[in-house]
Amino acid sequence: MIKIGVVLSGCGVMDGSEIHESVLTLLALSKRGAEALCTAPNGAQHHVINHLTNKESGEKRNMLVESARIARGKIRDVAGLKAAELDGLIFPGGFGAAKNLCTFAFDGADCKVHPEVARLAREVHQAGKPIGAICISPALVAKIFQGKHLKLTIGTDPGTAGAIREMGQEHVDCPVEKAFVDETQKIVTTPAYMLASNLAEAYEGIDRLVAEVLRLTGK
Amino acid sequence: MIKIGVVLSGCGVMDGSEIHESVLTLLALSKRGAEALCTAPNGAQHHVINHLTNKESGEKRNMLVESARIARGKIRDVAGLKAAELDGLIFPGGFGAAKNLCTFAFDGADCKVHPEVARLAREVHQAGKPIGAICISPALVAKIFQGKHLKLTIGTDPGTAGAIREMGQEHVDCPVEKAFVDETQKIVTTPAYMLASNLAEAYEGIDRLVAEVLRLTGK
Repeated sequence: MIKIGVVLSGCGVMDGSEIHESVLTLLALSKRGAEALCTAPNGAQHHVINHLTNKESGEKRNMLVESARIARGKIRDVAGLKAAELDGLIFPGGFGAAKNLCTFAFDGADCKVHPEVARLAREVHQAGKPIGAICISPALVAKIFQGKHLKLTIGTDPGTAGAIREMGQEHVDCPVEKAFVDETQKIVTTPAYMLASNLAEAYEGIDRLVAEVLRLTGK
Repeated sequence: MIKIGVVLSGCGVMDGSEIHESVLTLLALSKRGAEALCTAPNGAQHHVINHLTNKESGEKRNMLVESARIARGKIRDVAGLKAAELDGLIFPGGFGAAKNLCTFAFDGADCKVHPEVARLAREVHQAGKPIGAICISPALVAKIFQGKHLKLTIGTDPGTAGAIREMGQEHVDCPVEKAFVDETQKIVTTPAYMLASNLAEAYEGIDRLVAEVLRLTGK
């Protein structure tokens, strides 16, 4: 059974993983008979946002503990995870990818990446295994692999695309229902909620991304 | 556009709405061009469970605020919602349905139902509009309509099925990929994670349930 790491960053679009994108990734893997191995860093979220009021709540929450909600308790600390255990890696979106897994939401092209997340992604890439990144997560991947020439998409948003170019990567516009494949680097990206107006649209692109990641595993 | 109320109870299988079932319900509605109107009671969850350790965390969380994570902020207090605004109602599962929306997890057949949830469900039913209930939620529906003769399923679990019979309802065994339809009462139920071993299985039954609920709206 093909095993794909799914890197989460909390549970909720404003301060963690985008829940729809995460579940739709898990659905697309499940329906193709692939196993999802959910993982997240064991550490505090940048902050907690009340999703009703869109204001900071002042609470403290842990990325691994909150991500366990999406994973129904079956989740691993990213620090203990090795590329050899996986056939590929997927990053769903949500502000958590840009606030917790890296600081892109605050620092743009000068952002820093969570060291264990960067380590795992680099190991997976060096092993010739594919990486998928959804919504805002391509910005994280762009930073992790700064210095390599990647082609990726976050849809069409000029500001985010500009920051990706600033990191030395090539941004390619892409509609919501498609996934863009960098065959050389084995990086697959799709806009999802950077462009989607509903779940069905987001799922179309995510389903495509998952199909391409599984193809690139060569299994 | 057909508008279906989706009643949430928090965000996470152990203390709120089951996240996969909720998102898969929203996906099945979205792909059929139906609008989901997410709603939840504005009040404290029974408790908060750390989904990594499965232990109570001692935190306080609000059902409406946490459900807003699943709804991406677009959610209404159930107290302000009227049946006239909806074409039908769906209850995803998760322990929140049995701990927050009613007390079935603690009191079985003697449980009490959140008064605004009961009011909305009764109004929808009296207006001849369909109700769908997923996973453990049929136990909630059984209690709300105690005194009427409903046919419903929670899959095959003898204990839960027994409690449903104790409430005067008829339990019908049903496999995970199917939804059971009580045509007379316009109640549709499916086992989902009462039986499902993965998302693809859960989605098959939920997709069926959504199709049947939409059919029963007559629109």
